[in-house]
This record gives sequence, structure tokens and C-alpha cells, in this order.
Amino acid sequence: MTPRKTPKLPARHITAIRGFRAVGGTCGIKPSGKPDLMLIVADKPYPTAGVFTRNQAPGAPVTISKRHIRNGTAQAIVCNSGNANVCTGEPGLRDAVAMCDAAASALTCKRQDVLVCSTGIIGRPLPIDKITHGIADLSSKLTASKQADHDAARAILTTDLIEKTATVQTTIAGKKIRIAGMAKGSGMIAPNMATMLAFITTDAAITSTRLQHALRQAVANTFNRSSVDEDTSTSDSVLIMASGAANNRAINRPGKSEDQFIEALTALCADLTYQVIRDGEGATKTFRVQVRGAKSVRDADRVGKSVVGSPLVKTAIHGCDPNWGRIVAATGRSGARMVLKKLSVAIDKIQLVRDGEPIGHQPKKLAQLAKIMQDHHIDIIIDLGVGQAQADWLGCDLTREYIRINADYTT
Amino acid sequence: MTPRKTPKLPARHITAIRGFRAVGGTCGIKPSGKPDLMLIVADKPYPTAGVFTRNQAPGAPVTISKRHIRNGTAQAIVCNSGNANVCTGEPGLRDAVAMCDAAASALTCKRQDVLVCSTGIIGRPLPIDKITHGIADLSSKLTASKQADHDAARAILTTDLIEKTATVQTTIAGKKIRIAGMAKGSGMIAPNMATMLAFITTDAAITSTRLQHALRQAVANTFNRSSVDEDTSTSDSVLIMASGAANNRAINRPGKSEDQFIEALTALCADLTYQVIRDGEGATKTFRVQVRGAKSVRDADRVGKSVVGSPLVKTAIHGCDPNWGRIVAATGRSGARMVLKKLSVAIDKIQLVRDGEPIGHQPKKLAQLAKIMQDHHIDIIIDLGVGQAQADWLGCDLTREYIRINADYTT
Repeated sequence: MTPRKTPKLPARHITAIRGFRAVGGTCGIKPSGKPDLMLIVADKPYPTAGVFTRNQAPGAPVTISKRHIRNGTAQAIVCNSGNANVCTGEPGLRDAVAMCDAAASALTCKRQDVLVCSTGIIGRPLPIDKITHGIADLSSKLTASKQADHDAARAILTTDLIEKTATVQTTIAGKKIRIAGMAKGSGMIAPNMATMLAFITTDAAITSTRLQHALRQAVANTFNRSSVDEDTSTSDSVLIMASGAANNRAINRPGKSEDQFIEALTALCADLTYQVIRDGEGATKTFRVQVRGAKSVRDADRVGKSVVGSPLVKTAIHGCDPNWGRIVAATGRSGARMVLKKLSVAIDKIQLVRDGEPIGHQPKKLAQLAKIMQDHHIDIIIDLGVGQAQADWLGCDLTREYIRINADYTT
Repeated sequence: MTPRKTPKLPARHITAIRGFRAVGGTCGIKPSGKPDLMLIVADKPYPTAGVFTRNQAPGAPVTISKRHIRNGTAQAIVCNSGNANVCTGEPGLRDAVAMCDAAASALTCKRQDVLVCSTGIIGRPLPIDKITHGIADLSSKLTASKQADHDAARAILTTDLIEKTATVQTTIAGKKIRIAGMAKGSGMIAPNMATMLAFITTDAAITSTRLQHALRQAVANTFNRSSVDEDTSTSDSVLIMASGAANNRAINRPGKSEDQFIEALTALCADLTYQVIRDGEGATKTFRVQVRGAKSVRDADRVGKSVVGSPLVKTAIHGCDPNWGRIVAATGRSGARMVLKKLSVAIDKIQLVRDGEPIGHQPKKLAQLAKIMQDHHIDIIIDLGVGQAQADWLGCDLTREYIRINADYTT
């Protein structure tokens, strides 16, 4: 799930997939004047799937997009950054619809074929006139190009420091299939998707039902097993549109072709997840928690979530401190079924606890550990020893910079 | 639950209760040379109750104390700081028993009548010889005095900055009853008790069964509704011993007398809880989340826990930012049943969200809010509007100092 090396920024991504154009630019939401509006547009309505936040105070765009995606197709995604349009009541819902209407009008498509996302400050009315003018203006500049990919990926960022994009390729029944995506997310990142947006395009031919299934699978094993700060946002959305331009025999039922597609989509989502966590607010290091030997996947998830979310583990990682006592404590409070006498813990290849007994205090081990803890990425392996289930979770360290960003970031 | 003003440090506490003596001192566990060992000793075995961590990787002292308290009486509590004796395997259990034996031998009481606690670093063997010598040495200096109270309260601290002590008084069936306690806890503080120790003495006459019931009630409404960092420790223990010196008619069944005792004990625990949170690692401010209108107490607890635990809310409090959007987001992800359209949120007396609509953006309100947010204590009122249940939770801000303490605190 976690590539150790920085993936290179691909030259092209979402519009490298045949059937899609994009554009990104500035419409004046952000006081900084940074890019804040983007469109991804398909040549015609394509099978589309979405996974949305489970937060019970969802933003207006989530409500509207869920409504518009119900028929399984869409032609456009419009997204602004700088204002999340969350907790804005009825006017917020009207604004989200107005964004869809502006795009539908500019692109000559149906309102119901436009999906809408917003990310940024909560509880402030959208500057809707700026946005609808921006949509009209930008829609004349749609292209399939490196520049369009770059502009679109930049326009969805908020506290993110870097663009997050990825592409994967696979062969399904003799046809080359490509999937490309971009994401944003830095703070408020937690299981169940967080302030996280990802937009994915593919040239696979696939029905919207199977696309929805594939997306759920991929998200469950990637984005939903990561955490920056355990805060789940009100805006999270992952959307995927499939143009069918690869001319593969359409994936329309479970089977080998679908499995291959899910595998490729999961790899793409894992790549984007890693980029989101690596760019976590204030983060300087990432760590992966590999839970093994759990009674159930749910138990493995409990342990993974508890350890990646523990402020004491996160600060220990930051301080390069191999404080496995904190890992044991976070495991013990997770709610997973465990027997202390069967618990083993390792950091990288150094075994620290075996069958509940500490075995990591030899000077040689401590010296090796001290070196490992300096890495930018740390692997923690927790074996509960009570079953066969497993799960990998991804987290980042907790730093003074996180505090600075979030104590000083104003409403 | 949260007294607004700093409670004055009482001149006397645990040994002000007739029937108890105490002592605190240094036996050489901490490299700093700070006090690290204490004893609380009763004149004879008294009814005793305890509530312990639910962490499934509990420290050896928790295992031993649970065993020794099973018969409902105890005569002594021995506690060291600087080393938690957690994840130390069989040798750790032997060390915990050795501490009890040393106390039993010095005090001429039964091993089973000694309870043991340890707090500090996880995963290191106890320097047991230093400790057993320390116990023998200190046990000759037991007194009931202001100095003993002070020394005992100091000897259980780790990263705490201040001693935490409290006393309350009530009248039950015409007899004056006193309860006194001391606590430690600063980091790893979360529901289910955290690195938190509290030792309580009372002169009430009460059976061990009712004492256990009263303690459970008091802890559920105080310590278990507070959080510094959501990390639940492996060592938490709250112990209470009742000497009966008040000569009240013994509380031996549910009823008015027991209710009065529970009320007084809850007030004492609330006071200690507030002191623990106020002294949270790096904390500069406390905040209380008053959840109202929930469908069930469990739902109210879900919201309270989610909001006091949210790093984004905690950093907003630190930055004096009335970022109610983060409060709404933390409420929405709590899992409690809610309807956004019925949600209301206030900070102090300033209503910010009513029936899901933001109403806090008038300049006058914002100016009032800015002033309120400068306070050392903030009250947040969340009304879900879907039921009658309620719960109050207590938290503190998240600061650079928390990071410094926990990234630099070495194993």
C-alpha cells in the first residue's frame, strides 16, 4: 500500500484518458488569489461512481452530488476550493445546485449529469456569483493537456503543499486499460474519507454498477485505512468516470476482469492515499501499521486505526523514539480481541515484543532501532497471534507545524 | 463538572481523614531524583473499592491489585512513579507482588491487603531492589500530617506540573462525612481512565459492595468523560478506602444515604478531573462540551467524546478561534443519531448554529466571541434537538508544548 519512494509526478493524468478534458483557474474565492475552481468534463455522459463522507453533517455539495449520481452516469465534475459550502442550510443547497446549473448551461448538458464538490472553510456562504461567472469563463478553456491536468490538480488544493496525481495501467482480456486520478487532502484526514477529494478517470468499459462496486473496494482498502488527525470531514468525495474508450469487452459482472480492474484501481488509490498522508498537515514522516494475526478484519482495523490515530505514537514517531510501549498501549485500548501473552511487535525488522515479553533492550538492537527511526517512513508490525486476519493502515507524525496550521488557520 | 475557578490547594487531604497515614519520598527510580514512591496506610483493613483501566494490555500492578481487592478490603496502597511496570511479562508480575510483600512485611499486614500502582515509562523492568528498600525505609515515617499529604501527592507525579488534591464534606443522616483524594495524570488521558491514578480516603461507614457501586458511578460521570489526548493508558486505577470513623449508620444498601455519598464522591472526582485536565500535557485552556437533546446518553457521550477529542477543535480552542464548523464536523462524525436541521451550537451564550443554519456571522457577535475565546475556559453547548439525554465532557487544547513533551520524552 505504501510505496517507499516518492512517485514521480506523471506528465499527464486525468485528461490523458481518452474522453476527458479539464481546466483549472481562479475565480476569486481565496483571498490569496490562488487557483480555486476546476472542471473535469467528459465527451458525453459516462458510467460514474462515487463514495462519499459518512459524516452526518455533510456539505451541501455531497447532498446534491449523491442525488445526481443516482442514475449511475455523469458528464462533468465542478469543484471549488476555499469554501466547503458546509453547514450553510437551504441557501447552501441552492448554491450547490447553481454551480451544477452554471456548468450544465456552459457545457450544454443536463444538470443531473453534473457532480459538484467544494472544499475549504465551513459555515460561510459561497461567493456564488464569482463561482458561476468562473464556471462560464473556464468552460471555454477546457483541453486535454498537461497544462489542464496541472491546473485542475492545483485548483482543488487548500492547505496541501503539493499536487497529488497518479496513473496506473493494466491489461484486461487483451486490452490496455488506463486509470488516472488526482486528489486533495491534508488536514481533517481520517478513516471514512476526511477532507479528501479524489477525481478519477478511466478508459475502461464498465457498467456503473460494477464501477461503484470497484470503487467501494478500492477506497475501503486505501483511503479508509489512513489517518492524518482522525477528523472526518463533511465534504469527502471520491468520484470515478469511465469513458469506455479502451474498447475492452465491458465489465458487467463479477469475475476475473472486474478483479483485475479493482486491483489496478486499488493501486491508484493507494498511491494517492500515500501522497495525501505524506502531505498531511505538518507531517514530516509517514508510518505504516501492519496488523497481523487478528481474529477478524474488523479487529485488525480497530488496532490499525487506534495506533495510527494515537497522538502518543505519532509524537514518538516524530521524535524518532522507538517507544513501543505506546504502540502496545494503543493496541490494548483498540477494542480488538487480544491476549497480551500472544502479542508481538516489531519496528521494521527489529522484534521488540514477543509473546507479550519485551525483548528489545539489547544495546545492539537499540542502536539499530535508533537508525531506523531516523527514516522518513517507519513500518510497525503488530501480530496479535490470535487469528489470521490482517490490515494495513497508514499514518503520519504529529508536529508543532500541525498545531501552527490549525491554531492559526482562521474561520 | 467544571469549576470555573482554580480550587484552592487544601491544607490537608487524604490523611485528614481519621484512620489513615501516608508518606512520600525518593527511592531512586527517576534520574531527576524527584520523589517517586509513596504509601497510604490504614489503621486496619477497611472496605476498599477500585476502578481500573479497560486497556487489554494492562500493567502488572493492575493485575495484582485487581486480585488483592477481590475480597473488598485493603490496608495499604503502595505506588511508585517513574516506571509503569507495563509490558514486562512474568518478571513484572513478580515485581508487583514483591512491592506488596515489602509493604506487608514493613506494616505487618497481609500481602492481599496491599494494593499496588506504578506509573511512568512502559516496558522497562522495575528497579525492584531500590523500591523494596524504599518501602522499608518510608514505612517508618508514616504520619497523618500536612507534610505527609503533600509528600504523597508529589511522589505519584510524572509529567504533571502540579499536585492534584481535593476534599469534600457532606452530612449523611446527621453525621458529618469527609472524603479526600489525590490524583496524577497529564498525558495519555482519555475516557476509560488514561495514565491516571487517584487515591481517595473517606471516614464514611460503608460496605465494600456499596463503595464499589459509588465509585463506579462517580468515575463514569467524571474521569471517564474527560480527555487530554484520547490515549487510554495501561495503568489507570482509582482506589478508595473507607475507615468508618465518622460513625454514621453504615451505608449497606441503595437509598438516600448512598445517593448522598455518591453525590459527594462525584463532586470530589469532578474536582480532581478538572485539575488533571487543566494540567494536561501542554494545555493552556480547558473546554467543556455540554451535549443536550440526544436520543440516548450513549449518543450524548459519542458527541462529547468526538468533540473533546478532535485535534481540529482542540487547536481552534488553542488559537482562540471560534471555529464552530469544526465542532459541527466532529459532531457529525460521532456516530450519534442526529438530523442536521435540528442541530444547534453555542459557545458560551453566543448562539452560532440554530436548526442547522449558521447564525453567528454578525460583526457584533463575532466581536463578543473573539472576547470569549480569550478565556482560559470555554463552554461549548451542542443541542442535537432529537431527544432528552445529555452529558458533559471536559477537554483541553492541543499545543506545541504537547508535541515537545511527547516527541522529546524518551523511552
